Amino acid sequence: MLRAGQSLVLPGALPLDGGQRLEDVRVAYETVGELNAAKSNVILLFHALTMDQHVVSTHPRTGKPGWWRNSVGRGKPIDTDRFFVICANVLGGCMGSTGPASPAGDGQPYAMRFPVITIRDMVRAQVALLDALGIERLHGAVGGSMGGMQALSLAANFPERTSAALVIAATARHSAQNIAFHEVGRQAIMADPKWQGGDYYGSGKGPDAGLAVARMAAHITYLSEAGLTEKFGRRLQDRPDGTKGAKTFGFDADFQVESYLRHQGLSFTDRFDANSYLYITRAMDYFDLAEEHGAKGKGSLADAFAGTSARFCLVSFDTDWLYPTAESRHVAHALNAAGAPVSCVALSAPHGHDSFLLEVPALDRVIAGFFNQ
Amino acid sequence: MLRAGQSLVLPGALPLDGGQRLEDVRVAYETVGELNAAKSNVILLFHALTMDQHVVSTHPRTGKPGWWRNSVGRGKPIDTDRFFVICANVLGGCMGSTGPASPAGDGQPYAMRFPVITIRDMVRAQVALLDALGIERLHGAVGGSMGGMQALSLAANFPERTSAALVIAATARHSAQNIAFHEVGRQAIMADPKWQGGDYYGSGKGPDAGLAVARMAAHITYLSEAGLTEKFGRRLQDRPDGTKGAKTFGFDADFQVESYLRHQGLSFTDRFDANSYLYITRAMDYFDLAEEHGAKGKGSLADAFAGTSARFCLVSFDTDWLYPTAESRHVAHALNAAGAPVSCVALSAPHGHDSFLLEVPALDRVIAGFFNQ
Repeated sequence: MLRAGQSLVLPGALPLDGGQRLEDVRVAYETVGELNAAKSNVILLFHALTMDQHVVSTHPRTGKPGWWRNSVGRGKPIDTDRFFVICANVLGGCMGSTGPASPAGDGQPYAMRFPVITIRDMVRAQVALLDALGIERLHGAVGGSMGGMQALSLAANFPERTSAALVIAATARHSAQNIAFHEVGRQAIMADPKWQGGDYYGSGKGPDAGLAVARMAAHITYLSEAGLTEKFGRRLQDRPDGTKGAKTFGFDADFQVESYLRHQGLSFTDRFDANSYLYITRAMDYFDLAEEHGAKGKGSLADAFAGTSARFCLVSFDTDWLYPTAESRHVAHALNAAGAPVSCVALSAPHGHDSFLLEVPALDRVIAGFFNQ
Repeated sequence: MLRAGQSLVLPGALPLDGGQRLEDVRVAYETVGELNAAKSNVILLFHALTMDQHVVSTHPRTGKPGWWRNSVGRGKPIDTDRFFVICANVLGGCMGSTGPASPAGDGQPYAMRFPVITIRDMVRAQVALLDALGIERLHGAVGGSMGGMQALSLAANFPERTSAALVIAATARHSAQNIAFHEVGRQAIMADPKWQGGDYYGSGKGPDAGLAVARMAAHITYLSEAGLTEKFGRRLQDRPDGTKGAKTFGFDADFQVESYLRHQGLSFTDRFDANSYLYITRAMDYFDLAEEHGAKGKGSLADAFAGTSARFCLVSFDTDWLYPTAESRHVAHALNAAGAPVSCVALSAPHGHDSFLLEVPALDRVIAGFFNQ
């Protein structure tokens, strides 16, 4: 059974990696399936950067079906006849969990007063949610992209809390190129005069133009060069006046890929908060699981997993250039060194990083096989 | 001998691919070396998107040395003891050649009244320059990136004008991904309120913030993932207060790669006109040499080279993901089909697309070998 629209306020203050403690943290979440009496059938699903808890339920802002309803449901790879699936909006998000748009102690939105958070902080909030729900140990944790980072962070930092972690199209550390693309997005937002140092909540007008540019730049990295070529190539748009695809010798969206990207940018601003985008990308850039474990950033990734009792499955896609297969292999080597059981699956899929959100039958088989053990 | 700062106004109107004719086109250029009596020792050097005619001379705005002085000069791979090198600022540029910042017939800057131009239009302007200088046939044409596109366009469209074309890190058509990255940059510029529909010339304030974001996004594509990792990795900036690299849990440039990118963006705005960036990227996106030659865009690339009498050398870099080696191979196959002599050299260099501007000894050997035949 789907229960969308749930939320709770964590009972205590949430300690953060930055040293602060955040009071009255609300966590918004949805659940699918039924929790068994032993509370032993829980799969915690971590969402990616611009996703949210609407895994199966219709998105309240876009009206679109849940982002992973292909893979989660009755008889689906994550079978909700058997498992109780929880997905929570991340700390710093904008879909009900506490984030920069939430009221601070003074009743005004935090805006840029919101503390900079980390992936581990996001995981802390969700572990606190599990505590509140009385769930001690997960059957499994799963996530793609930033969701995969959270699954790794959970297994490393809260090793007693999960029996399994399925990590899809993710990495244990953000590379210089990853950071660079995020920085372009942040600068695009901050360069928009409507950003107003983050204090745009009362104005009715946020930095939509900057956020759209940020989304456009990021969106390119989610697709593969071959996928873009196959989907759009150099095909031209038909014109509103009925002219079949022809160059206009102007700056309208002549090419279909331009039109597509503009649409991606604009539609994103209807559903996402620009400040959340700043905070969540920052958390991803700060992510370096090895560095968290060891003196002065000298830890090895194997150290991060020293205490884990989980089994792991790492999935990558051959056309994903954002978090390529080499990143998964790097994690697998560390898990091997830590003595953790791990399988590493490199799938062939044409659509780059976004493949984890699309219909990839081989991925479904991996998911089903892993959790039904 | 270096003669910087030259320019001339083309005698007739310049016909453009868009159907317009542009009057009073000024072409700014510099020459190095001495033209021989037969005018047979000329190498025309085409510059890339954000470069200009300052190949050897100090850049008047940045004070930096010429962008290819490593490769052009006495005893250099393009030996100016032997060759007379010409490099002209492209049509649409902002370093002296006619572009959107130039006065139109009414004395006001063209701004967005400037016609959308193509790579072939840029080449037309430079062929007209050769006409004005009485140079019938080049010893060779050479260029990297957009310069390479111009070299290909010259060989295809003005086959009698050059005996050789050296094409470095280029392509015969802009891919969907290339177009997508350019579109992000254009949208970043146009989203900046200071762009004012292109009419910012009188205001004293151009869309610097948008142009900087455009440059940042593009700059990532000029580098390789491995190059970025080697140069910056996840290293943190030292703080102004003397703190050694540490996360600030804020939105300053914590990572060196962020600081580097911000600097690239900001410094670019001191030397480049935002409208020129729009027009030149548009020209590159329109570039599809096969489509120009044949009915209704059904031409093959081999058709484009049917009339050429030049010999070709195509150089690519293994870490260039903007115009990868496969693009050079595609051109080589077409040249083979057209019966043109071609050598195709895939060099190993760590720095991605930008390798053509850096010291790559193997590239120098290829250049010297090709032109000294």
